[in-house]
Amino acid sequence: MKIANYKDIELREVKDEGAKDVAIRWAVSKDDGAKNFYMRVFDVRPGGNTPYHKHAWEHEVFILDGKLDVVSENGARTAPAGSVVFIPPEEYHQFKNVTGELARFICLIPKTD
Amino acid sequence: MKIANYKDIELREVKDEGAKDVAIRWAVSKDDGAKNFYMRVFDVRPGGNTPYHKHAWEHEVFILDGKLDVVSENGARTAPAGSVVFIPPEEYHQFKNVTGELARFICLIPKTD
Repeated sequence: MKIANYKDIELREVKDEGAKDVAIRWAVSKDDGAKNFYMRVFDVRPGGNTPYHKHAWEHEVFILDGKLDVVSENGARTAPAGSVVFIPPEEYHQFKNVTGELARFICLIPKTD
Repeated sequence: MKIANYKDIELREVKDEGAKDVAIRWAVSKDDGAKNFYMRVFDVRPGGNTPYHKHAWEHEVFILDGKLDVVSENGARTAPAGSVVFIPPEEYHQFKNVTGELARFICLIPKTD
């Protein structure tokens, strides 16, 4: 069993194309023995965003702090802390922080490797 | 894409044997089209607990509010809000709220059906 405060997990800048002012913590990964899905915690600084993209796997998201615009092909919707977001495979998506405060969310993905 | 505030999702009492003062919201389930893993949000009221048990699937947990004792075969460890917990398959576990405040956590499980 692993128990850790997420703040004690290494915070790494996301350098993917299209990412701006975003950092990631791998909260539960294959290194912990997870075999089916992984938990990450993202920090999006004010003015920052994840890439606008799509891929073959789904996201299961919970907004922890702040507020994010969730962009899809149908436009943007605001998701404050406490929001649950499910993004099916092959659906375009982006998380944008248009506020002056840090936004933070949990994002889980299935094993893809 | 689904976006919902978790508080708007139906809260159901957990009636499993060994559960006390625990309620669940199914935040992302197969009804949303999730095919690999599911997200639930649990409320554990003061004095409440989940069953002490083990099973073939893992848990990936994030403590949102309050503080929980995480019980295993090695005893109890306190996990305050912000804690990440990974419970591997076939490991005994229980979440106990020994405080006077509500405790809340996210718990993800792989598809088991």
